[in-house]
Amino acid sequence: MVVTLTPLPHIPKVRPGDDLSGLLIAACEQSALSPADGDIFVVAQKVVSKAEGRHVDLAEVTPSEQAKTLAAQVKKDPRLVEVILGESRQVVRHRPGVLIVEHRLGFIMANAGVDRSNVDPDAGAEPVLLLPRDPDASAERLRERLVAHFRKRLAVIISDSWGRAWRRGTVGVALGAAGLPALMDMRGRSDLFGHQLRVTQTGFADEIASAASPLMGQADEAQPVVLVHGLVWSGAPAPAATLIRSAEEDLFR
Amino acid sequence: MVVTLTPLPHIPKVRPGDDLSGLLIAACEQSALSPADGDIFVVAQKVVSKAEGRHVDLAEVTPSEQAKTLAAQVKKDPRLVEVILGESRQVVRHRPGVLIVEHRLGFIMANAGVDRSNVDPDAGAEPVLLLPRDPDASAERLRERLVAHFRKRLAVIISDSWGRAWRRGTVGVALGAAGLPALMDMRGRSDLFGHQLRVTQTGFADEIASAASPLMGQADEAQPVVLVHGLVWSGAPAPAATLIRSAEEDLFR
Repeated sequence: MVVTLTPLPHIPKVRPGDDLSGLLIAACEQSALSPADGDIFVVAQKVVSKAEGRHVDLAEVTPSEQAKTLAAQVKKDPRLVEVILGESRQVVRHRPGVLIVEHRLGFIMANAGVDRSNVDPDAGAEPVLLLPRDPDASAERLRERLVAHFRKRLAVIISDSWGRAWRRGTVGVALGAAGLPALMDMRGRSDLFGHQLRVTQTGFADEIASAASPLMGQADEAQPVVLVHGLVWSGAPAPAATLIRSAEEDLFR
Repeated sequence: MVVTLTPLPHIPKVRPGDDLSGLLIAACEQSALSPADGDIFVVAQKVVSKAEGRHVDLAEVTPSEQAKTLAAQVKKDPRLVEVILGESRQVVRHRPGVLIVEHRLGFIMANAGVDRSNVDPDAGAEPVLLLPRDPDASAERLRERLVAHFRKRLAVIISDSWGRAWRRGTVGVALGAAGLPALMDMRGRSDLFGHQLRVTQTGFADEIASAASPLMGQADEAQPVVLVHGLVWSGAPAPAATLIRSAEEDLFR
């Protein structure tokens, strides 16, 4: 089993209302890339958010008192903090320069994914970009359109880059997934010597997002879509939401 | 840039004292695989630990009172807990079934990496396997031997699979790295619209370990070495130890 990762060339700058599946299909056709059964499209969150028009113009935001107080503590723009809080269930940790929240979808992450970099200035005077409204649903919509066109069993992952507890550097993670088990169950398989495996589940979609991440670049040469070919998996498809550890199970929030 | 991941076939069962670089070289030659400049060997921790003879026989371990007390709390074998504590600086979190420690090398991880699964019963009555003594040094030794043989610029990552805070499922991580920047500095690069990038460093070696992980399998069909071809990077090589966030920087221990 050889696995290949191919960045899709020819993805234009994405604008609100763009048909992202159409852009992906056109990019494949321009590059003579024919997705095969089992291929996975890893799509950077930013282009999904842009297509969905998830921009907010900071120039039009009035920060609450709570946002102003927190902004002073974390040394961020109070209007940005207002937008972050609007996307969050609660603040998990904060200190100057760092604001880690529980996003409204359950992700524990910095700044609720609200991002200034690479936001098109056409989107407002001081635009920022939020995460997609429902990344699993966005992945499923994309998957359905791609399957309808290519007539293959395809999967889609919507990826982001996050910092982590205990380790430096960001890694790719799956915000949304469709057509594959985001969490892969290894339960019940025995090892070479007949012991039961202690580690029972792998974060399959996160590993694929991490695999694609070094090919995506982050700046000028950004390539927001990577086609993954050759991976095999078992188990029923399950969305990226299954990767979220519940508060009751979690020891670190 | 197309990236390929190829599991090395023909890796035999690894035993204490085995020359792992020799096994990798033989496996490449049996498969007619010629590593190219910039190729990365991702090697599962277990085969490195086995070659280094990092087995402990629980039948020969006498647990301390501290280990017995903790073992009762986490519902594990007191002798196993004794071995885990011997590999750890401190216990970070525990509850029944869960023991998260700071490993002596600084990793925050479950059970200090002490593992029962896939351990050869020849290694003792009740053998367990510890992490390599110094995974960055093991990676560098392997890299030097591979470079001397193949006469190419090669890199080596020693990988493991870890659980994480906040998210379910294990993902591949880099315990050791040589020949590439484990932590890749993105500082100072500007995005498409001239803003400074806020995210400044990526966990490059962790992302590669995650990429290789789904190809390695975990059980019967285990393939402990994956050759990664086609990735490009910038910056000076730096070991996996640079991925560890210091206690002072960390908000979650």
